[in-house]
Amino acid sequence: MTSPTMATVTIWNEYRHEREDDDVAAVYPEGIHETLADILNDDHDVITATLDEPEHGLTTDVLEETDVLLWWGHEAHDEVSESVVERVHQHVLEGLGLIVLHSGHYSRIFKRLMGTTCSLQYREDGATERLWVVDPGHPIANDLEESIELPQTEMYGEPFDVPEPDRLVFVSWFEGGEVFRSGCCYRRGSGRIFYFRPGHETYPIYEHDGVQRVVRNAVDWARPTDGAPRTFGERE
Amino acid sequence: MTSPTMATVTIWNEYRHEREDDDVAAVYPEGIHETLADILNDDHDVITATLDEPEHGLTTDVLEETDVLLWWGHEAHDEVSESVVERVHQHVLEGLGLIVLHSGHYSRIFKRLMGTTCSLQYREDGATERLWVVDPGHPIANDLEESIELPQTEMYGEPFDVPEPDRLVFVSWFEGGEVFRSGCCYRRGSGRIFYFRPGHETYPIYEHDGVQRVVRNAVDWARPTDGAPRTFGERE
Amino acid sequence: MTSPTMATVTIWNEYRHEREDDDVAAVYPEGIHETLADILNDDHDVITATLDEPEHGLTTDVLEETDVLLWWGHEAHDEVSESVVERVHQHVLEGLGLIVLHSGHYSRIFKRLMGTTCSLQYREDGATERLWVVDPGHPIANDLEESIELPQTEMYGEPFDVPEPDRLVFVSWFEGGEVFRSGCCYRRGSGRIFYFRPGHETYPIYEHDGVQRVVRNAVDWARPTDGAPRTFGERE
Amino acid sequence: MTSPTMATVTIWNEYRHEREDDDVAAVYPEGIHETLADILNDDHDVITATLDEPEHGLTTDVLEETDVLLWWGHEAHDEVSESVVERVHQHVLEGLGLIVLHSGHYSRIFKRLMGTTCSLQYREDGATERLWVVDPGHPIANDLEESIELPQTEMYGEPFDVPEPDRLVFVSWFEGGEVFRSGCCYRRGSGRIFYFRPGHETYPIYEHDGVQRVVRNAVDWARPTDGAPRTFGERE
Repeated sequence: MTSPTMATVTIWNEYRHEREDDDVAAVYPEGIHETLADILNDDHDVITATLDEPEHGLTTDVLEETDVLLWWGHEAHDEVSESVVERVHQHVLEGLGLIVLHSGHYSRIFKRLMGTTCSLQYREDGATERLWVVDPGHPIANDLEESIELPQTEMYGEPFDVPEPDRLVFVSWFEGGEVFRSGCCYRRGSGRIFYFRPGHETYPIYEHDGVQRVVRNAVDWARPTDGAPRTFGERE
Repeated sequence: MTSPTMATVTIWNEYRHEREDDDVAAVYPEGIHETLADILNDDHDVITATLDEPEHGLTTDVLEETDVLLWWGHEAHDEVSESVVERVHQHVLEGLGLIVLHSGHYSRIFKRLMGTTCSLQYREDGATERLWVVDPGHPIANDLEESIELPQTEMYGEPFDVPEPDRLVFVSWFEGGEVFRSGCCYRRGSGRIFYFRPGHETYPIYEHDGVQRVVRNAVDWARPTDGAPRTFGERE
Repeated sequence: MTSPTMATVTIWNEYRHEREDDDVAAVYPEGIHETLADILNDDHDVITATLDEPEHGLTTDVLEETDVLLWWGHEAHDEVSESVVERVHQHVLEGLGLIVLHSGHYSRIFKRLMGTTCSLQYREDGATERLWVVDPGHPIANDLEESIELPQTEMYGEPFDVPEPDRLVFVSWFEGGEVFRSGCCYRRGSGRIFYFRPGHETYPIYEHDGVQRVVRNAVDWARPTDGAPRTFGERE
Repeated sequence: MTSPTMATVTIWNEYRHEREDDDVAAVYPEGIHETLADILNDDHDVITATLDEPEHGLTTDVLEETDVLLWWGHEAHDEVSESVVERVHQHVLEGLGLIVLHSGHYSRIFKRLMGTTCSLQYREDGATERLWVVDPGHPIANDLEESIELPQTEMYGEPFDVPEPDRLVFVSWFEGGEVFRSGCCYRRGSGRIFYFRPGHETYPIYEHDGVQRVVRNAVDWARPTDGAPRTFGERE
């Protein structure tokens, strides 16, 4: 059973756009990570970590105490070091939950876990997106309406080059005529992974009630469970 | 490897709307089954069968020689007899391919194979649908463009109460704001099952090149393979 | 997050073998349902229900208050009435968890949910079974060792005619040379379904620590979640 | 429909054991690749490639003309260069079929595609393995019996740290008490991937009729299909 103790969530943010671009700073003045932290602070132990900290803030100590890691990155995926990618990868396989947000589809850690290019189509047109719940029985859909409407966002369109999800929770409709698999669940090793599309830096997506509800649900869903031993190697 | 012999395809149609409703007769004067037959006649042995024939045209002899069965029904699902539903069910489990079209989502055979209600949302508004290929590597997507656009159709919306598909090939975008998982692959026993959404009786959907391409691809994909023995019961 | 309230578990047992056969009565003197109840009583509200009660003990009231239903049947599957099968089916699609045990693979409710014959091979030889955890990250494997060994049981062998499981948790090794997918997870509608192979009536399988651990884990896993609305029908 | 033209199969072999170890040379005097080539020569265009050739024999030209690539490696996975791993990876995502044999589970290309460690348990005891067909409707099982028995082989045991397979075709029973998911199907991008366990270098596994049948079936199954465009990037 899910442990009743409070989960520790580490929110990783590239944190470059907010410091470089006034439009982004206007939306997320403290950084996207602080807005995400506000969603979770009440009932989670929250750690924030950013690209320009030593080891990008993701030391072994931090990962050891983390139950679920949120990942937001965009323009500097290649600056995330091999050693940190490898460390996060190992922790996910051992049970660390990972929630990859929006442009994080192109992060090194997500591509490594998926084994595909994670490419997609996009258009920055600020038009409407409606995320439909296609799996209303899924815990990540808890307490949502049948859809979530975001009045202005960037479009992501299919094809999305990822493995067929274990469970598909959301499909997005875009005003411009496209669709996208916006909420995709995976397990790799003992780790639960959720890709969630919303979150462009120039729109206040993470202020939206429905999006906040999904982030909280996804954190609950992605927490590690005890499981059985993962014992490998030579047997007698 | 897929057998090079010509497949035998049986097209089952309820064939009531076309005889009762002038608007439908104007679109499908010979019945939907004949329009579907035209798609396949060149390189398949085609049999047609309709509800009001004895045993609905689906005798054991017909099913024995059929490789792939197409199913179109709408207003008279409940008139399909238990014995024929059971017979088709057993043949599917033994390898018969089944392609369920449009309102066939509510057919007795599809519900029996899925184990769910197969319910959905709908609106008959004659607006545009665009079917996006979300699995461009799938053989049912062979030779398609990135999407198929149908200028006028009935809307089907999520949630669609079916088991998570083995492979999801198409997702539909609707002008009115909805999405739908429009091309869903399943296997049950040795049988391949493909649900394909397009096909409303008052629009000439089956005259559309892209839709015809999908029907042909789906027939190729759904053909039985030899497989290994399905042996059940007590072992020595 | 899983609700902290105590789950209500209804244990359904055919309860015929125990009253008809001294060998079975010696192993399960109060009935298999009472032995299963003992596993869960401490921290669940437990209801028992049996075939020969009115409505087989599965009235609408009972199902309404049930979170998870356990199902054990063997010789009298056909005596379960259509109305009760239909009622349980609807409740599962609306979120009721269902754990199908051993010979319950041939129950009407399991076959209805799977859409296949659920056939398999078997041999009553009282030889050893070892259930391997193939998905150590799954919550149903919580706190298990790498395998569970049952010194004497009936053999079930492949092929097992069920849809490919959403998650496969256990694979059994049998002394006589066979294998079996012994722990299979499905979702249908909002309901979680777990098939668990162990449980023959002439061996004290449900006294085994590992088996008891799995039953408890499966109950935790199968509990309903809130989800989003399942709204179907015509839209404006 | 699968193209009727002859498939081009490239067989990649590490080809070290056979040249270094007399016991292996006794079983595979020309190298494992030549024994595999003998299985396919009659009705495929076969290319062989080995680690110590320039670019490991896997030049862009070779990959461009290859439909399906077989991969056998064991002691020198780390000597496969990053550029060749990357090249094969890209070709798989674009449609190249990949069949990974036995100890190839630890190859760089398989780990990259899976996103997991691909670890397992093993014991070199020369005992019996029986591969059960758990998916008798799968084309890779065409013309097999219910199981394949290998009198002497190395044991591989669960857990096998791979993503849940799209389709599980074989499960192995081992005389020593273990089980293993021995035939696992995946798709990544447009490429079909099949992991097949048998093939230890000190036993004449690839001389076995059933194993040869599986290799041929897997090649047929893994051939590229035309599909739809994989178009990514900015849209108008």
